[in-house]
Amino acid sequence: MEMEMTHEAKSRVFSRVLSRLENLVVKLKGKCVGIAKNIKKIAKDDPRRVIHSLKMALALTLVSLFYFVRPLYDGFGVSGMWAVLTVVVVFEFSVGATISKGINRGFATLTAGALGVGAQHLALLFGTKGEPIVLGFLVFLLAAMSTFTRFVPSIKRRYDYGVLIFILTFSLVAVSGYRVDVILVLAYQRLSTIIVGGATCMIVSVFICPVWAGEDLHNLIATNIENLANFMEGFGEDYFTIPENDMMSINSKKDGKAYLRSHKSVLASKTNEENLANFARWEPCHGQFRLHHPWKQYVKVGALSRQCAYHIETLCGFINTEVKASMEFRRKINDPCSRMSMESSKALRAMSSSIRKMGHPKQVMIHVENSKQAAQELENVLKTMLYGPELDIVIALVPDATVASILVNIITCVEKISEAVHELAKVAHFKEVVDATVSPETAKQPVKLHRGIVNPMYDDGGDRKEADYHVDVIVCDQKAQKVVIGGCTEGKVGVANSNECSNNVNNTSVVNPPPIIITCM
Amino acid sequence: MEMEMTHEAKSRVFSRVLSRLENLVVKLKGKCVGIAKNIKKIAKDDPRRVIHSLKMALALTLVSLFYFVRPLYDGFGVSGMWAVLTVVVVFEFSVGATISKGINRGFATLTAGALGVGAQHLALLFGTKGEPIVLGFLVFLLAAMSTFTRFVPSIKRRYDYGVLIFILTFSLVAVSGYRVDVILVLAYQRLSTIIVGGATCMIVSVFICPVWAGEDLHNLIATNIENLANFMEGFGEDYFTIPENDMMSINSKKDGKAYLRSHKSVLASKTNEENLANFARWEPCHGQFRLHHPWKQYVKVGALSRQCAYHIETLCGFINTEVKASMEFRRKINDPCSRMSMESSKALRAMSSSIRKMGHPKQVMIHVENSKQAAQELENVLKTMLYGPELDIVIALVPDATVASILVNIITCVEKISEAVHELAKVAHFKEVVDATVSPETAKQPVKLHRGIVNPMYDDGGDRKEADYHVDVIVCDQKAQKVVIGGCTEGKVGVANSNECSNNVNNTSVVNPPPIIITCM
Repeated sequence: MEMEMTHEAKSRVFSRVLSRLENLVVKLKGKCVGIAKNIKKIAKDDPRRVIHSLKMALALTLVSLFYFVRPLYDGFGVSGMWAVLTVVVVFEFSVGATISKGINRGFATLTAGALGVGAQHLALLFGTKGEPIVLGFLVFLLAAMSTFTRFVPSIKRRYDYGVLIFILTFSLVAVSGYRVDVILVLAYQRLSTIIVGGATCMIVSVFICPVWAGEDLHNLIATNIENLANFMEGFGEDYFTIPENDMMSINSKKDGKAYLRSHKSVLASKTNEENLANFARWEPCHGQFRLHHPWKQYVKVGALSRQCAYHIETLCGFINTEVKASMEFRRKINDPCSRMSMESSKALRAMSSSIRKMGHPKQVMIHVENSKQAAQELENVLKTMLYGPELDIVIALVPDATVASILVNIITCVEKISEAVHELAKVAHFKEVVDATVSPETAKQPVKLHRGIVNPMYDDGGDRKEADYHVDVIVCDQKAQKVVIGGCTEGKVGVANSNECSNNVNNTSVVNPPPIIITCM
Repeated sequence: MEMEMTHEAKSRVFSRVLSRLENLVVKLKGKCVGIAKNIKKIAKDDPRRVIHSLKMALALTLVSLFYFVRPLYDGFGVSGMWAVLTVVVVFEFSVGATISKGINRGFATLTAGALGVGAQHLALLFGTKGEPIVLGFLVFLLAAMSTFTRFVPSIKRRYDYGVLIFILTFSLVAVSGYRVDVILVLAYQRLSTIIVGGATCMIVSVFICPVWAGEDLHNLIATNIENLANFMEGFGEDYFTIPENDMMSINSKKDGKAYLRSHKSVLASKTNEENLANFARWEPCHGQFRLHHPWKQYVKVGALSRQCAYHIETLCGFINTEVKASMEFRRKINDPCSRMSMESSKALRAMSSSIRKMGHPKQVMIHVENSKQAAQELENVLKTMLYGPELDIVIALVPDATVASILVNIITCVEKISEAVHELAKVAHFKEVVDATVSPETAKQPVKLHRGIVNPMYDDGGDRKEADYHVDVIVCDQKAQKVVIGGCTEGKVGVANSNECSNNVNNTSVVNPPPIIITCM
């Protein structure tokens, strides 16, 4: 049968294979286009990335001359390797990071090399047999101590790479097993090639399209503040615009929600800001920035901006509330609230532009004062809105009502977390914890009698096995979420080791041994 | 005179030097004690740090055997160096990080080595002169391309170190200038020592007191949720406890504020969570965690917890409000609000313990439901509290009042940012930007006449120089914050190139060229 395959069948198979191949080609093409687009986007987002790649390649090609140029190779030999190694690991995106790593590497190599030679001298005193033991002990000791210092926050922040190179160089020099005179030549060669490699990195980094970490930090902080301003402006326009009819409100609201995401980047920029500030400290003066520019203050401004972003994040939760607001009330507070938004937006924008231009933030205080006046006005509006006993209630109500509203939002948030945790329990195959030996089957069959021994389970996860408690009958009423132990009637709860019954699961008095309370879901 | 120094003078000098020395010793002692305490604290905070340091030292001493043991040294020679180098850079705190770096290093060395040998073969075809040029070009090309791929987020997350080693190895092999047969022996030696180094790291990391990134992430998420629970519990007890007399309230409030900081760690744990999740993916199954444990879901739960922490941060702003709350109102909403706090705290605690024990979060839904019921009850309380037209006002007021309250807090926040920016302007020596050529001296002398040419300055920082505008007289009244141009009377503003005067600075119609508006501070 197979041999007698008709032409038709053959062509069908052929066309199927062809269509599959076509599919594959189309898919591959799509993927390639996707990757190309992604690469283009990455390059377009920050063209300095392309320049950085070319700079790195240039520095690497430059130090390769150690191998290509005969006189250099004759002078340094394989030590030229260290120049290549240095360039690869030291060259970083920003000038500050490159200088920080370069200086760290240089100093660490120097001190560790000297200490390593000292260790070899010391070990020689202990004879041929003692030498490797002493050296091994010294390597162990210094490696352990140095590794531990990397956990000290202040060292980790600035000298982490230096400590790493210190361990590396000390170990290499101490155990290399050469005679000391050879080691000195070798140390000279290595140190000089490392210095050449480091210098190449720094020169290329500083003089060809430099990327200054300090400037990046400066711009990041200004952009973050501007993002907050954008939110406040968008919010002021969107929330406090009273729609003339419902259709218009839906249209305008759909268009104007872009601002809702403008503060999100501020929420997540902490690590970035701190890294940039650490690198910026290593940079020489550049552009408008002096040597000891107060980078710490930028971090402080950044932290306060983040604080503001937290409040804004909460505010977002109230923009789409389903509760129909009273237009009467909204109209009353509209003017001061919208001015509060607008003036704080203006203040933030003025700060951002003042930082960008490095000019004194003169306009800022006017807008801050205006916004505070608007807040005062809001209070006045609330006061004049109602007279008599209601006045006190409404004024006093505002903070508590706010707390209550935020609480309601937190509850929504907790529910979301709980959904995510349930999802986690599902995908991570969390085991079914059956409360007090009530098996899932039992739970499904509401009224069922049991007789036996149960162990109490505690909320804290402890499994104290002091005693087993005898339980006569467990009746589990799933719907009422109530449990009956010890033969009590439905809806009541029994207390272990007793024949008492209680109406309330929560009210059972704590006896020793404690009562077994079984809840069903 | 100096020669005739009395005994008294001598002893006075001596005692002064002595006391200074004593001071120095005391200071040094104090500093040493401080450092010792700091080190002790770091070790005590996480004893695994000490163990890690010892493990690192052990691994390093083990690979040093390449030098100390004669047969090994004869076999591998200086290539033993690569084992030491590998251990120093690959050995990390957690198993996941170590494995990730080790595997990255191994694969990158293998592929880059092979490509390097290929590049040398290719370059040989171009003759003695062409060889270095072709090799240089290849190094440049691959270095640039590889460096750029490090900006692709997905590669950066998992293979950053591999790409680094790829560049390093390719450059070293390609430019090393050895004959190819020598290179193969060398490549074998290096690769095997790197594998030995990497394997040593992984074995020591996995089998001696392993630190699992996955377990750390698991515990971190559980701890974060527990911290939120602690806040909600503390808040519920603190805020909704109605003091019987003022003295008691002050005392109890001072003691019970520890919870106010419990959510702060959640706010800042994003980077840590993401790093741990990246490392956890590389770890083999351990303890309760399978190979493909859903680490991504942990990151998701973590992000939602952070969302909750944002709300809590805002809530903190309302705990110490100076507005005297109406006790009547507080008493009414007390029960539902306190139950909302308590039930969400219980729900969070149940989730945390469920994650810790890896058991199904059964209790959680009950508490979530309870908290939602309490929220419903709050609405009912508000509804029954007031009748008639006031009802609608109060119910409708709550969301808007909340928005207004948060706005007030944002304004406080903006003021703090503005203070920090002013501080920044001071310490960073921001230049005084004088608005529209009004010099600081002018601003200080309120009523002064000027005549000349001014250039308009724009808010966006642009310096459009289409035209200069002629201004006759500038009268600057500092107190009224109003500006007079063009000879208008005080309190009015002139429009450039015209003789019109306006009562309101903001109401001047925009003419082309635009009016010059000068504000004074």
